[in-house]
Amino acid sequence: MARERQHSPRLSRRSLLGGAAAGAVGLTAVSAGTASAAASRTVDVAIVGGGIAGLTAARDLVAGGRTVAVLEARDRVGGRVVNLKLANGGFTEGGGEFIGPTQNRIKALADSLGVATFTTYNTGNNLLYKDGKRTPYDTSGLLGSVPPVDAAGLANAAIVQSELDSMAATVPVDTPWTAAKAAEWDKQTFESWLNANAIVPSAKFLLDLACTSIFSAQPRELSLLYVLYYIAAAGDESHAGTLERLTDTAGGAQESRFVGGSQQVPIKLAATLGDRVVLSAPVRSIARSGSAYVVTADGITVNATRVVVALPPPLAARISYDPLLPAARDQLTQRMPMGSIGKAIAVYDTPFWRADGLNGQAVSDSGVVRSTFDNSPPDASYGALMGFIEADEIRAYDAASEADVKTAVLADYANYFGDKAKSPTSFVLQRWDNEGFSRGGPVAYAPPGVLTEYGAALRQPAGGIHWAGTETSTFWTGYMDGAVRSGERVAKEVLAALG
Amino acid sequence: MARERQHSPRLSRRSLLGGAAAGAVGLTAVSAGTASAAASRTVDVAIVGGGIAGLTAARDLVAGGRTVAVLEARDRVGGRVVNLKLANGGFTEGGGEFIGPTQNRIKALADSLGVATFTTYNTGNNLLYKDGKRTPYDTSGLLGSVPPVDAAGLANAAIVQSELDSMAATVPVDTPWTAAKAAEWDKQTFESWLNANAIVPSAKFLLDLACTSIFSAQPRELSLLYVLYYIAAAGDESHAGTLERLTDTAGGAQESRFVGGSQQVPIKLAATLGDRVVLSAPVRSIARSGSAYVVTADGITVNATRVVVALPPPLAARISYDPLLPAARDQLTQRMPMGSIGKAIAVYDTPFWRADGLNGQAVSDSGVVRSTFDNSPPDASYGALMGFIEADEIRAYDAASEADVKTAVLADYANYFGDKAKSPTSFVLQRWDNEGFSRGGPVAYAPPGVLTEYGAALRQPAGGIHWAGTETSTFWTGYMDGAVRSGERVAKEVLAALG
Repeated sequence: MARERQHSPRLSRRSLLGGAAAGAVGLTAVSAGTASAAASRTVDVAIVGGGIAGLTAARDLVAGGRTVAVLEARDRVGGRVVNLKLANGGFTEGGGEFIGPTQNRIKALADSLGVATFTTYNTGNNLLYKDGKRTPYDTSGLLGSVPPVDAAGLANAAIVQSELDSMAATVPVDTPWTAAKAAEWDKQTFESWLNANAIVPSAKFLLDLACTSIFSAQPRELSLLYVLYYIAAAGDESHAGTLERLTDTAGGAQESRFVGGSQQVPIKLAATLGDRVVLSAPVRSIARSGSAYVVTADGITVNATRVVVALPPPLAARISYDPLLPAARDQLTQRMPMGSIGKAIAVYDTPFWRADGLNGQAVSDSGVVRSTFDNSPPDASYGALMGFIEADEIRAYDAASEADVKTAVLADYANYFGDKAKSPTSFVLQRWDNEGFSRGGPVAYAPPGVLTEYGAALRQPAGGIHWAGTETSTFWTGYMDGAVRSGERVAKEVLAALG
Repeated sequence: MARERQHSPRLSRRSLLGGAAAGAVGLTAVSAGTASAAASRTVDVAIVGGGIAGLTAARDLVAGGRTVAVLEARDRVGGRVVNLKLANGGFTEGGGEFIGPTQNRIKALADSLGVATFTTYNTGNNLLYKDGKRTPYDTSGLLGSVPPVDAAGLANAAIVQSELDSMAATVPVDTPWTAAKAAEWDKQTFESWLNANAIVPSAKFLLDLACTSIFSAQPRELSLLYVLYYIAAAGDESHAGTLERLTDTAGGAQESRFVGGSQQVPIKLAATLGDRVVLSAPVRSIARSGSAYVVTADGITVNATRVVVALPPPLAARISYDPLLPAARDQLTQRMPMGSIGKAIAVYDTPFWRADGLNGQAVSDSGVVRSTFDNSPPDASYGALMGFIEADEIRAYDAASEADVKTAVLADYANYFGDKAKSPTSFVLQRWDNEGFSRGGPVAYAPPGVLTEYGAALRQPAGGIHWAGTETSTFWTGYMDGAVRSGERVAKEVLAALG
């Protein structure tokens, strides 16, 4: 029987640590194509999606005395968080990898699982590559991490950044559509607002770069209100969100990484759940049956009193629901697309750029990769340059071969870090838009008009079906921290509903 | 086994003429729930969707000597075109119903099937209901069909309309993303452009009304480029598209109707295809198998060399594809949502408004219905007022009962046509956002940034999978005429590919 692939053919030759680790910790693996001899389970709560949100919900529901089954489509847990094996025996992160201040819930989760963090390599100069010219710069100066464009641009960008933070401060993270100016801000693209406010070209460059780096979408694709909500969400109960906290390494969302790779968190979390987690079980339908639900996945059927769908909205749309979802919820899922993101990791014998006084963090106005990080392991036993391929850049390479992408990426890395970058010992490309169970990343965003009309449907349960996933979080939506928060919130919601 | 419903519970008690007629002409009906004893067929081309696009493609492919199977999810053909039975034995149209000048392909199709047209009732005055005041107006005057707002508003609206037509004239209907100003126009919402150009409040009212009437979406939801493309598409090879042709009754897209109801066209077309059309067969997966495809629907599996998917993009996204679709195509399907539309038809013993010199066409700045038509049969043997419930209005009633919607609609009709409107002999509500195999209407539209980055994926085949549906048409996208054109185009494409 025809089944959607777990990941794209282009990626399938790579081993995923998750799959191996899953076997090691005894999760259930359902073979594809066994639908005719399908297993079945009856639990209190069926959870669709074994990413950090779904697994967190499972943990809290089990702690609350409920039985659960987590149905994961892939042959690994972690969703948009994955460790990829490297040819040298090491690994690198193909998805979400960073953790920063105010991301308290992912920190608490990692702590509880014994997954430690370390500081993202940040010693030495950042690099601005603009108009074909390399400009190393010291982020300990007055400008902080802002790339040193011309003075007019810096002044303009500072004003714009401050204005965005001020506007964001009026946006309630739980109900952004109730902000006093919500209607006005949701009527326009972020691009329209930038065109009126970031009037110096180099300021517009900086803001565009911030936008694509944060959302993997161009400013024209995003509602201004959604951008403000996302900024407001970059904080916690006692710290207002700021744009700087989204973009910064030190003091920001890229400050630290996880020892062993970010996927250690969902892998170890799944291990605590044991065979409650079922892999290779993409859910096809959710149907009410009396006062319960029948959740049908390839190879397994789960009967449950409540269902938690912990998927991004556009993927939740691909499940068949009976009864149909309310119009507001269905139309929401049609209106929040995934961003367009890939990651390219080039591995070298050493992190050679460090000797040149560079920290591996470059930003650029050209190339397929316009933002890089030093992704070397904490012991620097080898070097790894990681670059994001985002929005228009990855779309331009949609039909390209991996070899062509590699050529383009290495040309960029050589521009930024010198000719040594042209000869990696290995190269890994992760295209999230080609992953069948993600089809983009890092997050499903809102174009104009969506939050004001459909925002309430993000978390509103549909009968006994509850919604989780980082898109539903009030803080750190789009991040691992938001995923944890959404899992904790939905578990509370379901425990209360079950009484 | 859990299966998506054919239509919402709220609607299921209504008989659909389509279902009855389908039985009469011998189409194949697959019973839901017979997947375990699934039928199978082998044909040259599997066609997913028995709307006008899919049926037209089938007709031309058969004429070209190819074998086909049309898999339709509902228990009727016609997609967004449906006749609904009335309590008085008559019927009314729940979906697309009008045909106008330059819509040559739907006209030719109807002619070939012996389905005649008649002129939409248009004798007497139109009505403007604004600020709680009724103003009948004669459309034979200098202003034509433009509602008589204040002089400043009329002047402003005329300039805006002319400017939109001029801009649209530079947009190639087959490749709108190549227009000289495509990038600039795709960066902003239609609302942003209107705010800068429709500066007189009553002009903004007129343009907003035109927008919701055409797209069932608010100006903030639409890309300016998409609106211009849609205007450009409102014509044919020898007539440039104009905004007026979209909004007008006489001389425009609402000029005529079909004798027997618009669904007569797909019903009679399906009859010519006989048991090639399979009803109640929602397609769940399309998988390549060697050089062919396996198309799996509830109750039937079709093996075919080529596949035509004749669904709106957001619904095509709900099929599982193996191999995965290219990123550009999948992300397109995440980025073109269905508009939000319902139709409310109140039936009376007579079209009583005619005696008051009114033609039944009202436009309004308030109420749940803001645009109405006289939907009485050609012999006026009874009266029918049809009103569109669109965009913000239908969303506001998402959780409302049909009784509550009826109360609100009849209050509007009474405001427009007097107290007699409060007492219909019957009332029919068709909510397309609650139809499982439409989830909105009349058309999947593009927010900012979509056409320029993803427009090419609208028609670009993915391997042996070809795309049809009114969204893929170069003329009259969003209309029945566009559906016919898309079916004719895709059939040519597939015949050429099959050699």
